[in-house]
Amino acid sequence: MRTFLDCIPCFMIQALRTGRLVGLSDEKILRLLIDLGGKIKNIKLDDPPPKTAVMVYDLINSYTGKTDPFKTVKKQGTEKALALYPQLKKEISESEDPLGLAIRFAITGNVIDFGISSSYDLESEIQKIMDQSFGRWDEEKFKKAVARADWILYLGDNTGETVFDRLLIETLAHTVTYVVREKPIINDATREDALAAGLDKTATIISSGCAAPGTVLDQCTPEFRELFRKAPVIISKGQGNYETLSDSDAPIFFFLKAKCDVVARHLGVIKGDLVLASGHLN
Amino acid sequence: MRTFLDCIPCFMIQALRTGRLVGLSDEKILRLLIDLGGKIKNIKLDDPPPKTAVMVYDLINSYTGKTDPFKTVKKQGTEKALALYPQLKKEISESEDPLGLAIRFAITGNVIDFGISSSYDLESEIQKIMDQSFGRWDEEKFKKAVARADWILYLGDNTGETVFDRLLIETLAHTVTYVVREKPIINDATREDALAAGLDKTATIISSGCAAPGTVLDQCTPEFRELFRKAPVIISKGQGNYETLSDSDAPIFFFLKAKCDVVARHLGVIKGDLVLASGHLN
Repeated sequence: MRTFLDCIPCFMIQALRTGRLVGLSDEKILRLLIDLGGKIKNIKLDDPPPKTAVMVYDLINSYTGKTDPFKTVKKQGTEKALALYPQLKKEISESEDPLGLAIRFAITGNVIDFGISSSYDLESEIQKIMDQSFGRWDEEKFKKAVARADWILYLGDNTGETVFDRLLIETLAHTVTYVVREKPIINDATREDALAAGLDKTATIISSGCAAPGTVLDQCTPEFRELFRKAPVIISKGQGNYETLSDSDAPIFFFLKAKCDVVARHLGVIKGDLVLASGHLN
Repeated sequence: MRTFLDCIPCFMIQALRTGRLVGLSDEKILRLLIDLGGKIKNIKLDDPPPKTAVMVYDLINSYTGKTDPFKTVKKQGTEKALALYPQLKKEISESEDPLGLAIRFAITGNVIDFGISSSYDLESEIQKIMDQSFGRWDEEKFKKAVARADWILYLGDNTGETVFDRLLIETLAHTVTYVVREKPIINDATREDALAAGLDKTATIISSGCAAPGTVLDQCTPEFRELFRKAPVIISKGQGNYETLSDSDAPIFFFLKAKCDVVARHLGVIKGDLVLASGHLN
């Protein structure tokens, strides 16, 4: 998916929010916005938004002096999700359709902003989301593809959501390779974050080699690209992975909440919808 | 009210929307955004947002080649509101509290985007809004102030909303001076727009002399400033007038919907709330 004009003010909003999150002064954030405004000319609309996001967050980091401004947010996210893990695990094991429930939990994981909610809020939030409408829901297609596959490539997204990914992977009981970002960007999961969620207990964790908040194939390692090419089924979590892989003809299933109008329109759903969408898989 | 950092991406969004409204190509809108991004450094956070908006919309106009890109939208807005006028007039006259109902209609007028709704939608929209929650509602204070006043200065805002202003002015039955913008900006009412709404039948129409989408006193004519100074009661419609006059100690009543977080926070209400707020009037 290419970058849309709507993404430009959105990058500004992200810079503003991150600046505030790390406690920059208004004066410093204004200088950051001025600087970012001057760099709009460097944005290539043909690139997917996560590719541009690297430039935006590198600039933000140069103002915050931090390479991982979301470190605390991510840590809290994992802790809150882990506190819910036993209860959700129990619900799945007692469900009539464990895989169906684990799938919904995994997509629910993409919905919640772990940075702000308490784990108490999280629980009621999850119940609310579980009843939410979905725009596309290719669950049967996904289940069939999984039944035929001998292993699964799983592209992670946010930290905290990782715990929900772990639940799905444990329920799938397949050999799974779990893919993280090469370096910290926004609240995306790195190897360290995946380990904190206990994903090493159930999957092999690898880095894609890409530092963007998505999967830009030509920025990934040859090893990852080889796995991507061979994978019988790929689970892709979140908007960033969708934005970078929506044009791929690999056997991908996109698990996400459509969080902005641009992605929702591209998917043919309404903003806020939960989505389980098969890519070009037949 | 000063300009907040949040207003900066919002100006970008406004440029994008207006560019699309007048049918600019994506390429031209991108150039507009690049240009605007380079001008962020000229924004003075001490100014109220409408003062900055003049720079933004002047830039937009230089790309669209139009001095009144909202002309069609405004015309449609007035027509749709005039189509509802007889019904609303009847409802007011049959109400147990005609002034109370006319006040709610006038604030409701600030809510509706006349550019997009059909007049059929408008009717149901109005009913919905009439039941909406309000953040501040100094109606009794307003009614008392009006009862003591021998004339009223009425600061208009959007075109179409003008018809709802006319209903309130007719119900008040006071001598009213109705104030419009000096030149077209966004969908704000100019003299021409006020005439189209029939406001000349019930009020004296004057321009403030200010071309911003608000009332920047030091950009207004001496005549307007004199009226402003002497007015026993001022009705100020919409966010733009609030943003430019919130610090004034004049006897102002602000009628508006809080349409963004920045204004809502400043007013101590929640975004989306309807507001009738007395200024520094005792």
